Amino acid sequence: MGTKTRAAIVGSTGYGGVELIRLLQAHPYAEVSSVISSSSAGTPIADGYPHLSDIFPGVLDGVDPKEIKSKADVVFLAAPAGVASRMAPQLLEKGLKVIDLSGDFRLPQPDVYEHWYGKPAADPAYLEKAVFGLSEIYGEQVRGAELLSNPGCYPTATLLGAVPAIKAGWIDPSSLIVDAKSGVSGAGRGASLGTHYSELNENFKAYKVNKHQHIPEIERVLSDAAGRDIVATFTTHLVPMTRGIMATMYASLAEDRTEQEFIELYRQFYEGRPFVRIRPEGVLPATKEVSGSNYCDIGFAVDRRTGRVTIVSVIDNLVKGAAGQAIQNLNLMMDWEENAGLQFIPMYP
Amino acid sequence: MGTKTRAAIVGSTGYGGVELIRLLQAHPYAEVSSVISSSSAGTPIADGYPHLSDIFPGVLDGVDPKEIKSKADVVFLAAPAGVASRMAPQLLEKGLKVIDLSGDFRLPQPDVYEHWYGKPAADPAYLEKAVFGLSEIYGEQVRGAELLSNPGCYPTATLLGAVPAIKAGWIDPSSLIVDAKSGVSGAGRGASLGTHYSELNENFKAYKVNKHQHIPEIERVLSDAAGRDIVATFTTHLVPMTRGIMATMYASLAEDRTEQEFIELYRQFYEGRPFVRIRPEGVLPATKEVSGSNYCDIGFAVDRRTGRVTIVSVIDNLVKGAAGQAIQNLNLMMDWEENAGLQFIPMYP
Amino acid sequence: MGTKTRAAIVGSTGYGGVELIRLLQAHPYAEVSSVISSSSAGTPIADGYPHLSDIFPGVLDGVDPKEIKSKADVVFLAAPAGVASRMAPQLLEKGLKVIDLSGDFRLPQPDVYEHWYGKPAADPAYLEKAVFGLSEIYGEQVRGAELLSNPGCYPTATLLGAVPAIKAGWIDPSSLIVDAKSGVSGAGRGASLGTHYSELNENFKAYKVNKHQHIPEIERVLSDAAGRDIVATFTTHLVPMTRGIMATMYASLAEDRTEQEFIELYRQFYEGRPFVRIRPEGVLPATKEVSGSNYCDIGFAVDRRTGRVTIVSVIDNLVKGAAGQAIQNLNLMMDWEENAGLQFIPMYP
Amino acid sequence: MGTKTRAAIVGSTGYGGVELIRLLQAHPYAEVSSVISSSSAGTPIADGYPHLSDIFPGVLDGVDPKEIKSKADVVFLAAPAGVASRMAPQLLEKGLKVIDLSGDFRLPQPDVYEHWYGKPAADPAYLEKAVFGLSEIYGEQVRGAELLSNPGCYPTATLLGAVPAIKAGWIDPSSLIVDAKSGVSGAGRGASLGTHYSELNENFKAYKVNKHQHIPEIERVLSDAAGRDIVATFTTHLVPMTRGIMATMYASLAEDRTEQEFIELYRQFYEGRPFVRIRPEGVLPATKEVSGSNYCDIGFAVDRRTGRVTIVSVIDNLVKGAAGQAIQNLNLMMDWEENAGLQFIPMYP
Repeated sequence: MGTKTRAAIVGSTGYGGVELIRLLQAHPYAEVSSVISSSSAGTPIADGYPHLSDIFPGVLDGVDPKEIKSKADVVFLAAPAGVASRMAPQLLEKGLKVIDLSGDFRLPQPDVYEHWYGKPAADPAYLEKAVFGLSEIYGEQVRGAELLSNPGCYPTATLLGAVPAIKAGWIDPSSLIVDAKSGVSGAGRGASLGTHYSELNENFKAYKVNKHQHIPEIERVLSDAAGRDIVATFTTHLVPMTRGIMATMYASLAEDRTEQEFIELYRQFYEGRPFVRIRPEGVLPATKEVSGSNYCDIGFAVDRRTGRVTIVSVIDNLVKGAAGQAIQNLNLMMDWEENAGLQFIPMYP
Repeated sequence: MGTKTRAAIVGSTGYGGVELIRLLQAHPYAEVSSVISSSSAGTPIADGYPHLSDIFPGVLDGVDPKEIKSKADVVFLAAPAGVASRMAPQLLEKGLKVIDLSGDFRLPQPDVYEHWYGKPAADPAYLEKAVFGLSEIYGEQVRGAELLSNPGCYPTATLLGAVPAIKAGWIDPSSLIVDAKSGVSGAGRGASLGTHYSELNENFKAYKVNKHQHIPEIERVLSDAAGRDIVATFTTHLVPMTRGIMATMYASLAEDRTEQEFIELYRQFYEGRPFVRIRPEGVLPATKEVSGSNYCDIGFAVDRRTGRVTIVSVIDNLVKGAAGQAIQNLNLMMDWEENAGLQFIPMYP
Repeated sequence: MGTKTRAAIVGSTGYGGVELIRLLQAHPYAEVSSVISSSSAGTPIADGYPHLSDIFPGVLDGVDPKEIKSKADVVFLAAPAGVASRMAPQLLEKGLKVIDLSGDFRLPQPDVYEHWYGKPAADPAYLEKAVFGLSEIYGEQVRGAELLSNPGCYPTATLLGAVPAIKAGWIDPSSLIVDAKSGVSGAGRGASLGTHYSELNENFKAYKVNKHQHIPEIERVLSDAAGRDIVATFTTHLVPMTRGIMATMYASLAEDRTEQEFIELYRQFYEGRPFVRIRPEGVLPATKEVSGSNYCDIGFAVDRRTGRVTIVSVIDNLVKGAAGQAIQNLNLMMDWEENAGLQFIPMYP
Repeated sequence: MGTKTRAAIVGSTGYGGVELIRLLQAHPYAEVSSVISSSSAGTPIADGYPHLSDIFPGVLDGVDPKEIKSKADVVFLAAPAGVASRMAPQLLEKGLKVIDLSGDFRLPQPDVYEHWYGKPAADPAYLEKAVFGLSEIYGEQVRGAELLSNPGCYPTATLLGAVPAIKAGWIDPSSLIVDAKSGVSGAGRGASLGTHYSELNENFKAYKVNKHQHIPEIERVLSDAAGRDIVATFTTHLVPMTRGIMATMYASLAEDRTEQEFIELYRQFYEGRPFVRIRPEGVLPATKEVSGSNYCDIGFAVDRRTGRVTIVSVIDNLVKGAAGQAIQNLNLMMDWEENAGLQFIPMYP
């Protein structure tokens, strides 16, 4: 174990944090060397997460950059918005690699961040340094990055599903409507009426319509792919399940293309990338088909009657939408195989 | 009880049928006089539905129009597609009023029915006679109808949410995209991999994209409202819950209107109608808020950035989407109060 | 409406409170005249419970005995433990009838209450006055009661299932083991890790084993039925569902009796009581078969190999386990039909 | 890969079969060389299980012992009861090792099997040869076994929880009552009313009370541990979740022992065994804490008032209750590390 890259996890008691622990346990080149929590430092992590009993006997460390430096080579920041903007610079200065799972470094323009997040933005020097780790699109920049900004869960599902068609010019990007649905774990472990079992079970609800903080992150990449500024309609819903995101996307066809052509376009676009799977004609993916895994599965339905294509993209929000993608990015940053430690078959049923 | 209108229910062992039994039990002017099932005739209905034990001790009758005539004044047909097209004419000839919950009389053009349902259409003479019972839109025709075609569950949620804005000319009807989600009970009681618990629980999936048989029914009414032929993009998803439908609808604004203006437009449109409720500004309805009731709740989000409005409409698929709306139609056909027997408060949580 | 008995509900924003509103809406002789909440006074109840929109436009009143007296004839106390012990005496002194849904008046001995609830007990004079409203067992005392203590949800399911066999001497009461399971709504609307969706969904857990505050209430009635002091093993589990309780009970047979004999014993015991239903031989009830209704359904399995009987008893925890039983008790207190306003068919599926 | 032990899976399209595929994918010494299905031979397994797309491109083989011999060293039989009794002898004769996940070889007495399973028993010569693979109890016999009978899911949870206390003489084995609860996946992938989503969701039900075919398997091991014939009360319930089993067990204390003493007894009993975890005092395990993993977690509650101990034991029914335990047994049969390929951290939440 001594020669493995040592990883510290800040925010270990959140769902993103424990998922990092689960996935890194199986990693061939990295190991968790410190689990860090500002609120529960000094207690065994298994007290709050008994599923880690006997497997992960560690006691939670406090947040201390010097101590982190002594214990780790790379730091995953899995803390709420506003924490990484302060911590990342300190850690980078100490020579640590940083992978941030929050939104703090996803938006290069401070005013945009402040508008959508309602918090002060990070230092612009670091915003500029940060690489947006949607590695199937920006993989070249990820290799060798020191400060990696891991994409949001909704943007990951949406962008992997929409970008190839936009880049190819097959759909009108300004017509894009994204109807997204997420399991409840995306809301984190905090207890509130919004995460209360009796309120969500046997219920389906929309929330933050046109107001979700993932919108600017989505539009930034869409605009980059389209070569012009794009605004998109983006709706989020809460599904009575724990894990999984589906983005159902609608766009007007700019060219007359068949489902089979879409399938081939996407298979070529993602060739050699281990985590995007394209369904065959007539088949659309369901969220359970990627549960527990780092896959993003995509399917298509072209409708000649309306001249629109429907694109369905699914991920596990805690894996490809958070911890798994972060490890995928670590793999690229360290020049390891992209899928090292991530070759889980989805858990089905 | 003797002076109550007697109702027979064909297809009593389906979910629509038992929901009719549940709701009619509380009706002041009607009573269930015969529960009919082709497959289980001769057995007590409580054998298959123990929740009816001691309440509804009746034995299931077979399908025999003459016997039905002797026992009933009105017949609810809650059978699979293809049954009502054969039975309704016989029952009407015997002087019975008929309310059909299947799709057999929803499409006036036989070829359209045959294209979407893959079955022979009903006799055109009866197709013409049938009144489409979306009573908030076609209420005048419902009063006095002899053959009532009860709308589908998806069309009910969709059309109540879309028609007022289209009639007012506030949205471009050709831009309409309907992203619909349903609980599993909409698929009926038949056992299949598609209704298997372990396949649906903790899963979210799209199905029949652009192919759902409710599409022509929706487009027919949309076209009627728009005054020209409309094709709409319509997607259906299965939610891991038993009851509830949400239609999330997207359309381009034809006029610059605020959420508050939409709210007022809809409140006026549905004034005096007991079962449509419009949420105040900034609030969208969730499916559980109508569970077990005949309400259709609607909310709006206008997005100036994209020039689109998002309309969210929810119903309980078995009540307003089936049995409840059928009883609402019976009330109008019989000239009773529209909400007789339907004043249930939704069951929450 | 003017001649209806006026009911005030203290704790209207809890699940027990809104369920009282739902059920009383359909009551022929009573109406809700005041909804009261200490925490949300002055706001419309539909703000927190949009399912009540347009149906129940009332604004929440504060807790003021004088105002309650001016608005109500009877008061339902649906507040947390410790509230009723203080409020009930004030309300009784003003001549109001009081039905308490908490545990404050269920245990006649103050020290037992204080041991299990960890709070000061009510004034012994009022503890003595209080009638325990398990009306199928203590119905005679309920008629004419001024202070009614509504049984807990677990005790209701357990005692209705166990008492007839104990009274008949057919089982050894000291052998009784109760394995109980509840939906999450029993924990109330308070947000905590213990009611968090992601923690409970796809999970099954035991809690408060041998420590649940309903144990002394159960043992009190069991002892009363047995004619001697009984201690029982009682375990509670949380089921990933919103509503429903099942008590699975095990006891050694004191006499050699068949399932059919148990069925007959119980049918006789509950003859004329509208809310207990006994399943036929070989059939056990499931929680969904009573959902939304005031029924308690009971079934039996006798095992000659082990000399034990298994008794399964199910209720809806919010109806027969709380609000429904409270109204049933009101009906008896007021000398109305026992099932007035409670003739709901369970909602299935 | 060539030097890995080759495994064939008969019944690959059942839930046990696909779980074997998922787990073996991560195995260091074994690989899946043939996926076999009598009903779907010739089609790609990913057609029925899209979660295997791109990962497991194999086409299903038919059932042909000669072909199996050419492709495999060991065969997992994950077929319904009655298949293994016929196939296992043929495979053994060809020199293959066989691990049977059905009940066909769990009961050494043919008449007992025939009574509980209603099918002809296997050849007694093979019944005698079969080793019952509850390896924490019978590990010595498992090493080197040729025909391994993998325990049932309920027996695994029950016996790991009950045997140490019985062997130590701390509880009266004849007082044992097992109240077991299972997720729906235990019923397999077959579609029926009993696995229908709308029937099981928001429902909790008991089934096969005193009649479950796992009873004789449980009693056989209990009797072995007690040194005398034991009959046990055993009840099974269906929980609205996909995975997980909890056995809540009740027994009279034969000695006055504390929870802490139970904890120490069990920790010693399972010392060195990687898959049994004992919770500390005051903590009971929940099913989600072992989800997706091969762990069996156990906790205790001693009640001095009643003189009984409550033992709670949880597993993932498809892993420790089926595929995982089968691989654990393979590891022992092949003299590999007991936990090879099974070091998954449970998936939480």
